[in-house]
Amino acid sequence: MSERAEVDGPRLLRSLAAFAAIGATPAGGVNRQALSPGDRLARRLLAERALSRGFAVFQDAAANLFLRRAGADDTLPAVLIGSHLDSQPTGGRFDGALGTLSAFEVLEALEDAGVSTVRPVEVVAFTNEEGSRYAPGCMGSMAFAGLHPISEWQAAMAPDGERLEHELAATLGALPEATMRHARPDIFAFVELHIEQGPVLERENVPIGVVTAIQGTKWLEVTFTGEAAHAGTTPREFRKDAMAAAAHAIAALQATVMAEDPQARLTVGRLSLEPGSVNVIPRQVTFTIDLRHPDGIALADLEALVRTTCAIAGEQWGCTTAIRPLLDMAPGTFEPALISAIETACRSRGIACRQMTSGAFHDALFVNRIAPSAMIFIPCRDGISHNEAEFVEDRHVLLGAATLLDLTLDLANRTDALAGR
Amino acid sequence: MSERAEVDGPRLLRSLAAFAAIGATPAGGVNRQALSPGDRLARRLLAERALSRGFAVFQDAAANLFLRRAGADDTLPAVLIGSHLDSQPTGGRFDGALGTLSAFEVLEALEDAGVSTVRPVEVVAFTNEEGSRYAPGCMGSMAFAGLHPISEWQAAMAPDGERLEHELAATLGALPEATMRHARPDIFAFVELHIEQGPVLERENVPIGVVTAIQGTKWLEVTFTGEAAHAGTTPREFRKDAMAAAAHAIAALQATVMAEDPQARLTVGRLSLEPGSVNVIPRQVTFTIDLRHPDGIALADLEALVRTTCAIAGEQWGCTTAIRPLLDMAPGTFEPALISAIETACRSRGIACRQMTSGAFHDALFVNRIAPSAMIFIPCRDGISHNEAEFVEDRHVLLGAATLLDLTLDLANRTDALAGR
Repeated sequence: MSERAEVDGPRLLRSLAAFAAIGATPAGGVNRQALSPGDRLARRLLAERALSRGFAVFQDAAANLFLRRAGADDTLPAVLIGSHLDSQPTGGRFDGALGTLSAFEVLEALEDAGVSTVRPVEVVAFTNEEGSRYAPGCMGSMAFAGLHPISEWQAAMAPDGERLEHELAATLGALPEATMRHARPDIFAFVELHIEQGPVLERENVPIGVVTAIQGTKWLEVTFTGEAAHAGTTPREFRKDAMAAAAHAIAALQATVMAEDPQARLTVGRLSLEPGSVNVIPRQVTFTIDLRHPDGIALADLEALVRTTCAIAGEQWGCTTAIRPLLDMAPGTFEPALISAIETACRSRGIACRQMTSGAFHDALFVNRIAPSAMIFIPCRDGISHNEAEFVEDRHVLLGAATLLDLTLDLANRTDALAGR
Repeated sequence: MSERAEVDGPRLLRSLAAFAAIGATPAGGVNRQALSPGDRLARRLLAERALSRGFAVFQDAAANLFLRRAGADDTLPAVLIGSHLDSQPTGGRFDGALGTLSAFEVLEALEDAGVSTVRPVEVVAFTNEEGSRYAPGCMGSMAFAGLHPISEWQAAMAPDGERLEHELAATLGALPEATMRHARPDIFAFVELHIEQGPVLERENVPIGVVTAIQGTKWLEVTFTGEAAHAGTTPREFRKDAMAAAAHAIAALQATVMAEDPQARLTVGRLSLEPGSVNVIPRQVTFTIDLRHPDGIALADLEALVRTTCAIAGEQWGCTTAIRPLLDMAPGTFEPALISAIETACRSRGIACRQMTSGAFHDALFVNRIAPSAMIFIPCRDGISHNEAEFVEDRHVLLGAATLLDLTLDLANRTDALAGR
């Protein structure tokens, strides 16, 4: 006996509130960084809910977490939906959690209604999408897509001094109920619901964004090395001031890159210096540059500009310059058949939608390499994300989840391949 | 029975090596920051040596440490000699330790030779000259001079999370053998031997610098506050980027201040940002500016320039700008009678010397407010200090200590007041 599956709105909103309490910050945000005790607690809560509903629970070597509802033909490739549960150090309540918990709500809604689907449906929470505690971000989805084995990052060190190897083992060990998966299951399609993290949907009052592509991202780590010396006694011509070189380079890049190309994005999000004393000229400064552009060639040009600008600044202040790439994500284009399926789902409910490009990278960028993928965006207030003030209206949460449910049902009952694959 | 007092060179060099071992860093420097366990150990070692030679040991509420050799008329104001024992986090072996241990060698040399002086002679190790763990520097000498009671800084917090109040009590408590001094003794004169921390003496091959004045210093703390936002999705016009504002301000100041006035010094030695994630536009950046000039009016003009430049940079990046003064030390001029006494001491031993201004501030700047003061400089290699590579030749150490000994003997046997006071 089955009825029409529908999202249980109050349950989904309660679920978002319950997960926002794990790692809650005084300012109303969330600090639940990848592989931290808070992250483990969130994974446990989700796994327990899945087991109580009779779904199967799996994790893989990268601690990606999977919750599976069997299909009528359980041998068919699964429809994968989900996102991530980790947050920025001063992150919001929706980035990642929205897509993961809405996907789980889809599973519960199908179960509540007794709806059988031809294909199995799996919810995924990918490990370390944010990359704030261990760079790079999207480790879980990169490992899932076979781009990098997770072992490649075992030696990564968090600012809090914990090695990834240790924290990964602790995270896996904290969920003994999960069956370990040693091979990637076949995926029919992957869909990720996420907040836009930008201002477009809100400004145009459109509740659903259909993401057609993700811009490319490069993370670079720049290190200037000069010489520590006394602030009071060292004349300009004797100074090898790594902080002066860094300021010079950053100021020059900030003054030109985005002013000359409105599609470009350049951010220095991290900077540390040594020895860090008021009256000592800094010997060494290390900072990160996050560079983005929807066009791969323009992105490569930007990297070249960064390298030249830094070399000039280093030379001007008698410092050596070293630049290390931390992350290089080419721009990605999503599956047209999935894009139209999302638009069809919106149309059938009378929900306005628009196509758009994602300024942020997401796990879907990597899953897209191995299976047809797409993303659904909903608006967030003032476009603010990676910020404790991140906020999404309830009605947008519910429209996003309803769209994801309809799309999942559509895909999970298809027996033909998606067009173009 | 007394002979001519002479510095025991090997003993002084062994003493410098023994103290350099306390807080020794792998790169050959010293990390013995104020009121740390290492600082306590150094104070203990010095106090034990003093007690074993029969000198009296005192400390005051600011944990300034005094070692007193009685005079023939012990009621006369004492000749005070010494410096400090604390270091920068990646400091050298001579900054502070040279002046303190040479002063102690003077006491021992007098004792070895059985020389009696009319006035008592005291060695002092002032607390927290460096200011790296707790700003401002020269807390001990400022408290000693009655400019600020040490209680004013009780709430100061070290980067390692320890409150000054706690560390000060622990430091005082670690030396129960010392008699607590509740009033400042009368001081006839104060002389501090120190390394130049600049390149002049070495370049001119002059072993002794006679310091006539110390340039003024201002420490400012600048905070830009903008808004955290996603690095990939936020266009330039929506960015309130505190790091971009800081880079803009620092680059502008570094490009102009020292280029336009070779006597000026400007250093950004510390910078921290929040939240500190590669892909998040920084909400807040805080950095220090160390400003110096031998002329008080020019120094005030520089502060005004810093304030204007920061305000402009903040506005350009949509940030609020706050500037907090951490330290304000007016330039100081030393006692002419002491300056000639140092020159006389050098002349009688045939040691070349030259008058000079100090680019660094020192405890003598503050003691000078309450007693005639002066400083003796010796060269350090390449002018490098506040650096683990700081190095002084043995022969310069011995010439400096011999000059200090002769000067101390001269002053400790004077019964008339110093000219000009």
